[in-house]
Amino acid sequence: MADPRTSIISERLKDVRRIIAVSSGKGGVGKSLVATTLALSLAKKGCKVGLFDLDFTSPSTHLILGAGNAKPTEEKGLVPPKVAGLTYMSLIYYSGDQAAPLRGAETSNALIELLAVTLWGKLDFLVIDSPPGIGDTMLDLVKLVPRIEFLIVTTPSQLAFETVKKQIRLLKELKIPILGVVENMKMTPSEIVKKGTERLDLKFFSEIPFDQAVEAAIGSPQQLLATKLGEKVQQIAQTV
Amino acid sequence: MADPRTSIISERLKDVRRIIAVSSGKGGVGKSLVATTLALSLAKKGCKVGLFDLDFTSPSTHLILGAGNAKPTEEKGLVPPKVAGLTYMSLIYYSGDQAAPLRGAETSNALIELLAVTLWGKLDFLVIDSPPGIGDTMLDLVKLVPRIEFLIVTTPSQLAFETVKKQIRLLKELKIPILGVVENMKMTPSEIVKKGTERLDLKFFSEIPFDQAVEAAIGSPQQLLATKLGEKVQQIAQTV
Repeated sequence: MADPRTSIISERLKDVRRIIAVSSGKGGVGKSLVATTLALSLAKKGCKVGLFDLDFTSPSTHLILGAGNAKPTEEKGLVPPKVAGLTYMSLIYYSGDQAAPLRGAETSNALIELLAVTLWGKLDFLVIDSPPGIGDTMLDLVKLVPRIEFLIVTTPSQLAFETVKKQIRLLKELKIPILGVVENMKMTPSEIVKKGTERLDLKFFSEIPFDQAVEAAIGSPQQLLATKLGEKVQQIAQTV
Repeated sequence: MADPRTSIISERLKDVRRIIAVSSGKGGVGKSLVATTLALSLAKKGCKVGLFDLDFTSPSTHLILGAGNAKPTEEKGLVPPKVAGLTYMSLIYYSGDQAAPLRGAETSNALIELLAVTLWGKLDFLVIDSPPGIGDTMLDLVKLVPRIEFLIVTTPSQLAFETVKKQIRLLKELKIPILGVVENMKMTPSEIVKKGTERLDLKFFSEIPFDQAVEAAIGSPQQLLATKLGEKVQQIAQTV
């Protein structure tokens, strides 16, 4: 029997103009930082923006934003709080920020539940911090979220980029739109990711230089926008 | 009904003296590099060592070792090839190095199958490159592999360490032995990880400085042992 909640998801997202999943086949590439900064950058331009943390392996946007005790409120669904100008929702409001991980079916269930209950209202952009990897949760997300587009984050490391290429091949097979690739934590000049991206017929957005200041800016959206990462992501926000 | 393969796993591992899972709650921290280098370092000391790549999200030890066309052979089970002096097995010999990820139950099944068919023979150490995160595969691994011990890898990043701390709390709840914590990719002095590790009553093994030479050493075990990462991991290999 079809889960009645899946049919409500399109309805919940109908007033959201664009849905961008920031994603990486590989963890630890700065995906959550790029997702959060992209949401902040789009909001700074004057757009109405939501940020949705669906990184079931290590939710961290609440730390990056310094969300403190913000909580959704209930009103025929969950109304996300406003954090740093964003309409903000995280799976930690569902599962708590606990050690015990959700197992496979529970994760699928939590994802459906979160998508079905969250009341986003009218948004220009909903930025999703996606789970890393190309496992079940990414496939569920692609199946459940209409009009989803991907922005892919990698680092210059060949180990990261090899995994990211697998993810891209998979998304292409599934015919999911990919906006392009961002190369984060760049330390030395190299064209491997740029050329590899172009060979996959994708847009290469930008190199983001490695910036020690980012670590200190965690918890402060204003400081984050002022880092080199912040500058670069604001440029990306002009072109997505 | 119990899976008959699970009962064979202990038998398969009975001549392996110690089993060390190199693991990280967070991806992209250099776990596979540390696991591979630890295996190489123990072998260099004269131990008989196996390396088992069970990182279902992004298997990469074959790239790090430059394993080329090495393949297991069949003989009432799978006999792992020798690569750089290690008895080497990877899930890519099971699933292929393809884009399409295994879904939850398939991953569980692949893990059981790999553990049940691989003929390790007599080993001093079996080093496992574990899947990142604290999801199903880590829990399966803990359940299926007798005498498993964990070596935890993190980076100095607070986002990485927060996730790693969750993993440690979970492993402690499950009463799984943890050898200690390695802090990888250290760039600037800070005591956060060292102090956090000690507060969790765990051994803080070492800081591994960030070393650009590591990227160039991928594919060459000898070069890898000569990097700063190689030096530090060889020190760790003396004390595990």
